[in-house]
Amino acid sequence: MRALLLIAHGSRKAYANDEVRRLAERVEALEGNDFGLVVTAFLEFGEPDILRGVDRCVDFGAAEIVVVPYFLAAGNHVVRDLPRELECAGARHPRVRIGIAAHVGGADALAGLVLQCAQEEPSRTR
Amino acid sequence: MRALLLIAHGSRKAYANDEVRRLAERVEALEGNDFGLVVTAFLEFGEPDILRGVDRCVDFGAAEIVVVPYFLAAGNHVVRDLPRELECAGARHPRVRIGIAAHVGGADALAGLVLQCAQEEPSRTR
Repeated sequence: MRALLLIAHGSRKAYANDEVRRLAERVEALEGNDFGLVVTAFLEFGEPDILRGVDRCVDFGAAEIVVVPYFLAAGNHVVRDLPRELECAGARHPRVRIGIAAHVGGADALAGLVLQCAQEEPSRTR
Repeated sequence: MRALLLIAHGSRKAYANDEVRRLAERVEALEGNDFGLVVTAFLEFGEPDILRGVDRCVDFGAAEIVVVPYFLAAGNHVVRDLPRELECAGARHPRVRIGIAAHVGGADALAGLVLQCAQEEPSRTR
């Protein structure tokens, strides 16, 4: 079974982390989703952390985990911290394949999404 | 003329801000883009700042500006700081309508984009 692990930075504000968890639920419910499981994990300020997020995927029977970094910029978190954490997590589960997908901010479809946001009726400020 | 103003947090790292500027260029080039202008501005750590970004839209003849907050979470930056900055900017241009669209993290299409990231071939870490 293949699991999708959505990793966000995480916030001290619970509602911001809940927003990510709800997004993961929406991903799981999408038609065309061929992942057996969608799990959320947080680099900082959220539960589960990355080690536990990977454990959770494995506990549910994942033989392969595809990580989607929920970050807009390919900064240190994406380039350095996240692979390092995943390396540690992977060492605990040597038979499980872990792949890292493009971060959300690097997705081709993002331009269309921005335009769509703009074309929907905005709330006026003046 | 209607301008799209893409507002990012901004980073001390120039390449991260350039990533946002390139995204704005891609938005501008999209088929279906009916905005006369797409401008990038930064809340912190980037040029132009929000005041100057709004000025730039007006200088190019915008009668209406639609702001897309390039943020994943509806935290204080989106809910408090950004409207406040836009209020100040708008006071300098009382005839210009400024609207704030949904932040990128709140877009319905984001779930599909995450799934798409995951379904493309990831780089393996083990």
